Amino acid sequence: MNKINIGIVGLGRMGQTHARNIVVNIPEANLYAACSVAEVEFEYAKREFGVKELYQNFEEMIESPNIDAVIIASPSGFHTKQIRLAMEKGLHVFSEKPIGLDIEDIKETIKIIDSHPNQIFQLGFMRRYDESYQYAKKLVDEGILGKLTLIRCYGIDPSTELESFVKFATSSNSGGLFSDMSVHDIDLVRWFSGQEIKRVWALGKNAAYPELDDLGELETGAAMMQLKDDTMAILVAGRNAVHGYHVETELIGTKGMLRIAQQPEKNLVTIFNEQGIVRPTTQNFPERFREAFIREMKEFVSCIIDGRQPNVTANDGLQSTKVALACQKSIKTKQLIDVE
Amino acid sequence: MNKINIGIVGLGRMGQTHARNIVVNIPEANLYAACSVAEVEFEYAKREFGVKELYQNFEEMIESPNIDAVIIASPSGFHTKQIRLAMEKGLHVFSEKPIGLDIEDIKETIKIIDSHPNQIFQLGFMRRYDESYQYAKKLVDEGILGKLTLIRCYGIDPSTELESFVKFATSSNSGGLFSDMSVHDIDLVRWFSGQEIKRVWALGKNAAYPELDDLGELETGAAMMQLKDDTMAILVAGRNAVHGYHVETELIGTKGMLRIAQQPEKNLVTIFNEQGIVRPTTQNFPERFREAFIREMKEFVSCIIDGRQPNVTANDGLQSTKVALACQKSIKTKQLIDVE
Amino acid sequence: MNKINIGIVGLGRMGQTHARNIVVNIPEANLYAACSVAEVEFEYAKREFGVKELYQNFEEMIESPNIDAVIIASPSGFHTKQIRLAMEKGLHVFSEKPIGLDIEDIKETIKIIDSHPNQIFQLGFMRRYDESYQYAKKLVDEGILGKLTLIRCYGIDPSTELESFVKFATSSNSGGLFSDMSVHDIDLVRWFSGQEIKRVWALGKNAAYPELDDLGELETGAAMMQLKDDTMAILVAGRNAVHGYHVETELIGTKGMLRIAQQPEKNLVTIFNEQGIVRPTTQNFPERFREAFIREMKEFVSCIIDGRQPNVTANDGLQSTKVALACQKSIKTKQLIDVE
Amino acid sequence: MNKINIGIVGLGRMGQTHARNIVVNIPEANLYAACSVAEVEFEYAKREFGVKELYQNFEEMIESPNIDAVIIASPSGFHTKQIRLAMEKGLHVFSEKPIGLDIEDIKETIKIIDSHPNQIFQLGFMRRYDESYQYAKKLVDEGILGKLTLIRCYGIDPSTELESFVKFATSSNSGGLFSDMSVHDIDLVRWFSGQEIKRVWALGKNAAYPELDDLGELETGAAMMQLKDDTMAILVAGRNAVHGYHVETELIGTKGMLRIAQQPEKNLVTIFNEQGIVRPTTQNFPERFREAFIREMKEFVSCIIDGRQPNVTANDGLQSTKVALACQKSIKTKQLIDVE
Repeated sequence: MNKINIGIVGLGRMGQTHARNIVVNIPEANLYAACSVAEVEFEYAKREFGVKELYQNFEEMIESPNIDAVIIASPSGFHTKQIRLAMEKGLHVFSEKPIGLDIEDIKETIKIIDSHPNQIFQLGFMRRYDESYQYAKKLVDEGILGKLTLIRCYGIDPSTELESFVKFATSSNSGGLFSDMSVHDIDLVRWFSGQEIKRVWALGKNAAYPELDDLGELETGAAMMQLKDDTMAILVAGRNAVHGYHVETELIGTKGMLRIAQQPEKNLVTIFNEQGIVRPTTQNFPERFREAFIREMKEFVSCIIDGRQPNVTANDGLQSTKVALACQKSIKTKQLIDVE
Repeated sequence: MNKINIGIVGLGRMGQTHARNIVVNIPEANLYAACSVAEVEFEYAKREFGVKELYQNFEEMIESPNIDAVIIASPSGFHTKQIRLAMEKGLHVFSEKPIGLDIEDIKETIKIIDSHPNQIFQLGFMRRYDESYQYAKKLVDEGILGKLTLIRCYGIDPSTELESFVKFATSSNSGGLFSDMSVHDIDLVRWFSGQEIKRVWALGKNAAYPELDDLGELETGAAMMQLKDDTMAILVAGRNAVHGYHVETELIGTKGMLRIAQQPEKNLVTIFNEQGIVRPTTQNFPERFREAFIREMKEFVSCIIDGRQPNVTANDGLQSTKVALACQKSIKTKQLIDVE
Repeated sequence: MNKINIGIVGLGRMGQTHARNIVVNIPEANLYAACSVAEVEFEYAKREFGVKELYQNFEEMIESPNIDAVIIASPSGFHTKQIRLAMEKGLHVFSEKPIGLDIEDIKETIKIIDSHPNQIFQLGFMRRYDESYQYAKKLVDEGILGKLTLIRCYGIDPSTELESFVKFATSSNSGGLFSDMSVHDIDLVRWFSGQEIKRVWALGKNAAYPELDDLGELETGAAMMQLKDDTMAILVAGRNAVHGYHVETELIGTKGMLRIAQQPEKNLVTIFNEQGIVRPTTQNFPERFREAFIREMKEFVSCIIDGRQPNVTANDGLQSTKVALACQKSIKTKQLIDVE
Repeated sequence: MNKINIGIVGLGRMGQTHARNIVVNIPEANLYAACSVAEVEFEYAKREFGVKELYQNFEEMIESPNIDAVIIASPSGFHTKQIRLAMEKGLHVFSEKPIGLDIEDIKETIKIIDSHPNQIFQLGFMRRYDESYQYAKKLVDEGILGKLTLIRCYGIDPSTELESFVKFATSSNSGGLFSDMSVHDIDLVRWFSGQEIKRVWALGKNAAYPELDDLGELETGAAMMQLKDDTMAILVAGRNAVHGYHVETELIGTKGMLRIAQQPEKNLVTIFNEQGIVRPTTQNFPERFREAFIREMKEFVSCIIDGRQPNVTANDGLQSTKVALACQKSIKTKQLIDVE
């Protein structure tokens, strides 16, 4: 059987993770081409991943007759356009989240995706491929929690990256805490509940770096949400977890509760020292979701080979962005916001 | 030294707990008098606690020249009136929460309390006397969390009591989930943050007993709150914790996070069986806060002896009730509610 | 009802704990008399506990017509003699562990105890009165573990006390690690299994303070034991737990495993900081077994009032000392030692 | 670069795990040949792994000019002979544990291994490649525990496999609990301490299946060991962990304690239900050490490519077998056994 040849655009932290996973962990695929505007990433791709074709322009890369699929790991603002171009060239597409930044633009993109039903489209909600999340999803679907009443999601980045974020935020816009970070959590709420979000209220506080107030950014935020069937959802997002990378999800139902990563345990080690009983913690998302990133990419390649669509759809991207934008609007207006 | 002689009104579950604690654990006090309308409780008090004076009427009990202080554990609707009567009779007063149900009535009561500065008044926010909460408060006050940004409080009653609540709710009004249960959590938010609550949004869902919708009651509810200094607070209240009695508090600050009873561990036992690794859980509030109830009563007696006021004031009762009522109003109007 | 009047001998750390518990927590008893050779303890007893009669001599104290019972918290070498004298004076006796240091001497003492069946005798194995241990014992007796195959007991003192132990050991003899510390664990093995110990092998290593080798003392030791029915037992004893006071017990059976204080959690607080996920630990035995000490004393007083013998007998003292001495002998001879 | 072509002997559970890992996870190697006496495994290898050459005889397989290395996953009794034959044919060798069953035979084999210093030899102590173990080893080597005083190792198989073991044991010999299972733990003791074992005492008890007594087998065993520098080691081995697969390692040092898999947590999920707080457990060794098996095989292939010897040597196999045999002898003689 021939291997799937893949071209990647964007070789930042996320792009490099995908590139390495294809080379090291997915025997069924080749990383054939790469596209970057950064000269240094260009060299890196050749040296590290043995990429055969290198491009400085996405439009050129997708002209290559040698590639079957693209991975889009470029800045968020480019996603929709690149998705459309690649789909129209007949390529399979894996795009990093968020699918886009503007609702109408995303809807337009979905139309084009939908008009190519034989090409695979997958969005980078890798948490759905994490073993603990999959284990929980199976239990929830089997009904061990009864009917869900409340979902709580924490997504807090390590504080080691906060200072550099503050510097970054002075010159550039992150899209806002909820768009930048909570889309994963919003997707989990929708995935576990099978419900859309109806209404949100969001709050934020800048206590470590009050100067973020002026930049319209948040170091810590919270949102409460009402779903269509009145299930409640609570999100906490932040950039200041001193103990590392804290992604936690809780599901409360009529027959029990369940927590995924109640504590962000790094491994199976426990240390007993002057501090007390200490469990080391995961420090960042590449560490926490290392296996999930591999598994989502294996799923993408496997969907191409088997000719079936993955579980994460373009609509999941649309809906999560909608809700994230509603949260951002709530922060701005200080009001309850109805979604859509 | 003479012992403090105490009269108690109300011998329901809460009243009996206080009565027994005085008899068994507080050598400095006597349970001298008891007041109840229920004949059976009347006999019980005589037999179990050796109470010397028995009354069917609160006004009569406080006429007794033999008592120094009263414990008010009657139904919530009687609290303010009984507090006022006792204060005016020159007695020290310990009142169960909530201090009252109506804001103006509470304010009136506080005026009377304030006009008797030499008498002790203490409100039954026993969590402040729990060792884990006190340990946490000390750490927070020492600054180990930096500046607080978010507080999360769960207060969920065991589902073993839900069915009887549903029956009760058809004939009688609980005052609502937030007034009935969340006042403790609201007090914790205020105690830890030193801030008042500015704005709330509350939601609820009845999934196990949808018939509660018609009764205006909730089996599970959530509220998000903004404090005066923009600190965020999240409350989850419920009556359906299958695993027991779940009271959990989380504090997020700029320098760390802290959780009290992240898991409601019953004791130090861990069982390894077919289910996996199992830690037994606390089953109800008398079990979870057994020591706290004793300690708050020791504090009350000790304040009387030392002539100093306790840490929990009547104003704490007023503020927590205000916020609980705002949550109830939010449930009804489906809107953001400004407190006061 | 008249209160039980108690005389105490020994006002070191252990004696003071018992004295305070009687005064503060046991309304049914008075601390009436105290005996100490130390002038300072003498004053302390008067001031702190309001003791009415003070003696410098145990023989004199037990002549007092005012006391009903004695608590023996003197140095271990005095226990048997004082037990015998008090029993013969018709007094109830609570003795700290170990019951004695010499097997023949203990047997003689038991004869005298047995010849006064109407007087209460209780030995200070307080762990049996700890709530977690009692919870576990009930489960084990109900059969949730099936048949026991192995019991593991850790008893490790905090390293904060090691340096002072090393100083103490240069001038005085502790009796050895196993006699000094493991008797509690040996008692637990017997209590849970209902079996006597047949054979032991013990080892030790001095790594922090190698100079202990010359003093015949151990900072860390381990013993493996075979019980009469071939159940296995493993003890680890030590004086160097950096994280605090580590008492842990494990029971392995054919239907499950159970651990008591797998981790020596101080309370219900969890801290998330630069170290990771941290649970504070208990720091010493008065903290860990605070409630157990109260409960064992309540049991002693209650046995006197009810005229029934407690669960912990003089024979429990004999058997645990026998095994501890066998461990000490194994350390010395480097051989397997048959008990008895 | 050319891929490393591997031939495997033995396609039982262990052999299949290695075979699949090479095919799915190690792009640098090919599973080129397989050898099995079982017809069904023969077919399986062709179908599942696309193996090109199939043999019923090990001697024939190693004659193939196409293979560079062999994986030996045959029954333990064949290991030494197959290692010798392969080494002498100039092949790299990965052998499952134990390296052999007889000390003289192993020594002979090591001589032959040593006389081919340019060929890689690796033994299947995969735990050394587990991330949690590697994390712990690094901390220990950095000195966070100070000097080691005691190591405790549990290796208990799930009880789901016990009944079939009992059947198996009636017709066939497992080699004994310690040889069959504890060699991994013995290797860990040596790896962490850097010390050889001097003396052992081993015990066992058959409580679920007393009939194992007659077969000379054990369902639960324990061994205490003294190392050359007096460090103590405790092993518990068993075949009856109701909660799953329990491999736990503890290191006690002068500056702290550390536990690896104190609880055999399956993933990051916690369930709150009628049982209490439940963490699911790992169920068997392929699940617990899935990543470690991949990583040890990556190391083997990478050693071949880089021309360097792996961390696990033939001598590690010799020493662990020596100690396991001493434990078996102790069980038989009921005596302390000096190793060597």
